[in-house]
Amino acid sequence: MRKNEQMVSGNAHPTSTNGIGVGMATDISEQPEAFARLVAPGSAARIAEVAAVVAARRPRHVMLTARGTSDHAALYGAYLAEIRLALPAGLGSPSTVTLFGTQADYSKALVIGVSQSGRSPDLCELVKAARKSGATTVAITNEPDSLLAQNAELVIHLDAGVERALPATKTYTTELLALLMLIEGVRAGDGRLPEPEASFLATLPELAARLLEDDGAEPIASRLRFVDSLVITGRGYGYPTAREAAHKIMETSYLPALAYSGADLLHGPLAVTAPRVPVLAVVGQGPGGVAMSEVVARLAARQSEVTVVSSTDVAGAHDRLHVPGVDERYSPLLDILPLQRLTLALAVTRGNNPDAPEGITKVTPTR
Amino acid sequence: MRKNEQMVSGNAHPTSTNGIGVGMATDISEQPEAFARLVAPGSAARIAEVAAVVAARRPRHVMLTARGTSDHAALYGAYLAEIRLALPAGLGSPSTVTLFGTQADYSKALVIGVSQSGRSPDLCELVKAARKSGATTVAITNEPDSLLAQNAELVIHLDAGVERALPATKTYTTELLALLMLIEGVRAGDGRLPEPEASFLATLPELAARLLEDDGAEPIASRLRFVDSLVITGRGYGYPTAREAAHKIMETSYLPALAYSGADLLHGPLAVTAPRVPVLAVVGQGPGGVAMSEVVARLAARQSEVTVVSSTDVAGAHDRLHVPGVDERYSPLLDILPLQRLTLALAVTRGNNPDAPEGITKVTPTR
Repeated sequence: MRKNEQMVSGNAHPTSTNGIGVGMATDISEQPEAFARLVAPGSAARIAEVAAVVAARRPRHVMLTARGTSDHAALYGAYLAEIRLALPAGLGSPSTVTLFGTQADYSKALVIGVSQSGRSPDLCELVKAARKSGATTVAITNEPDSLLAQNAELVIHLDAGVERALPATKTYTTELLALLMLIEGVRAGDGRLPEPEASFLATLPELAARLLEDDGAEPIASRLRFVDSLVITGRGYGYPTAREAAHKIMETSYLPALAYSGADLLHGPLAVTAPRVPVLAVVGQGPGGVAMSEVVARLAARQSEVTVVSSTDVAGAHDRLHVPGVDERYSPLLDILPLQRLTLALAVTRGNNPDAPEGITKVTPTR
Repeated sequence: MRKNEQMVSGNAHPTSTNGIGVGMATDISEQPEAFARLVAPGSAARIAEVAAVVAARRPRHVMLTARGTSDHAALYGAYLAEIRLALPAGLGSPSTVTLFGTQADYSKALVIGVSQSGRSPDLCELVKAARKSGATTVAITNEPDSLLAQNAELVIHLDAGVERALPATKTYTTELLALLMLIEGVRAGDGRLPEPEASFLATLPELAARLLEDDGAEPIASRLRFVDSLVITGRGYGYPTAREAAHKIMETSYLPALAYSGADLLHGPLAVTAPRVPVLAVVGQGPGGVAMSEVVARLAARQSEVTVVSSTDVAGAHDRLHVPGVDERYSPLLDILPLQRLTLALAVTRGNNPDAPEGITKVTPTR
């Protein structure tokens, strides 16, 4: 499959001139459609079937495993599993299997491998080992014929289409959506989503489309053009968004972008947020957002310039990326969109090609 | 307790002039003694008792929870538990309990809270909630009367003495040692350490003392004086060391120091390691080290300047912090020592006070 083909489409992003960044802009613009495909009845029914099988097994704990961008989706899945299923959940280190040959007992576990390509050898091996020891295994991937999908008992196909740019965007957000549908389906027991989840999913494609039309990302990217480093922070459900935004900015603008949970930021690295280091803060609607408001106030007291990703004004913030006001649990699916557009615009304004940044490949064969 | 008192001792570090950094230098220099206290028969017997209780409960998975520096010790504990106990292990997010009120079922879990002060409210609550739901709970702390210690069923006292500087050093390494003794004791079943662990622990204080006498950290710190950012990388057991070194440098020199697992580094952020960004790479003796040698070669091919923390020469490395050649499993207890000295010397040469850096406090009351 040609992973790197550049297609100029009618959805081209306004910052993309001379074809630079058109691939990433197109990928970003396709997310509402990708959401719509995944929540459509046929796909939703297939995910519900997977969820019903998982629910019937009554797992006692959840382990997710992923690399790179998908690792941030997996982190979202871990929060969802802990909070919505009340199951201990965490991210597994593939190296314990691939480098150290551990054969852990996963017989009470739900093990979820998340990978757009489904080809990272370490994830494939970890899922295989977990299945062998009795785990219920699920692969979430954009490549339903991949080795990861073959190694897992159950498969959720992201159906996000080919990603044109090397930095993942629509495969990331569809991974988030698949995890939300899976875990809420397990919570429901029969896999069928109750209210309010069903209503939210029905409106998601439209919310995403409207957000991408008007998010205020470009002037903020322009303002960040000359920075040397960035700090990005969030708590709870907002933390994976902070991690993913930092990763994307780093991949495409080669800037040291430090991601912290708002709590960990106060445990030491606060001094890195000197007045000359801009901060992006994800402030949701809910307990995580309340905790983050305090972090923004602490940062403002230190003369930090804080741009918030929020649906409402936040005291102490200098600027804001406007996102819809949804329950925090859903916010990662939307909050990352303006941050993807910010990433793209920042890379372009700094003279980099976000479609094919240096140093990354679509499939990274680590063991 | 006066956490911040500065005591000038005969062990003062040569880079410490005018009292700047004497506290941290003294803390660092006391680690061999702190190791010796923890492995001494009385303390070892108390840890063995805790380990025997844990082993008898036959936990099915392990959750560790911590904040800041202790989070890196907890990460070491998670690797140890997965590899040595073959139990699924991960780090828990206290915010799921404290912000979202989750009551997860930890009845099959070993839950370990790691905190020098034992006072972080979120950890205390998570351990309390886990114990209530039936978990076997262990507090590892330097304050045996703290709330964390009260909330846990079992307590391991680090007995590291008062830390003079705000950045944690001797409490970090004693946390690592306590986790090693606990988990190897659980593996043994009766808590008593077999060979080769017993022999290694007997030699550890002496290995640490010799390493602190001659590690080559100062010329490297001098060379890094003018950098804008740093990348620090390791794999498997070496990854917590990379994370902790980055955290310490950030806290004391206010530099963006990015920590990556060697595998994740190849999944995207490699381009951040431009020729002008120095890399520190932890290369152990074992499977993690073999994997890291490939990472160093990849970095060298990109004209990165790589300083390795290693007991042997590594192809492509520009410079080396010399550490004793021990099994990778033990290496975190030693590899961090020259990196602590590097941190101290770098902060002093950049005109900062590592004993009382901006922005950090010894106890951070996050929820």
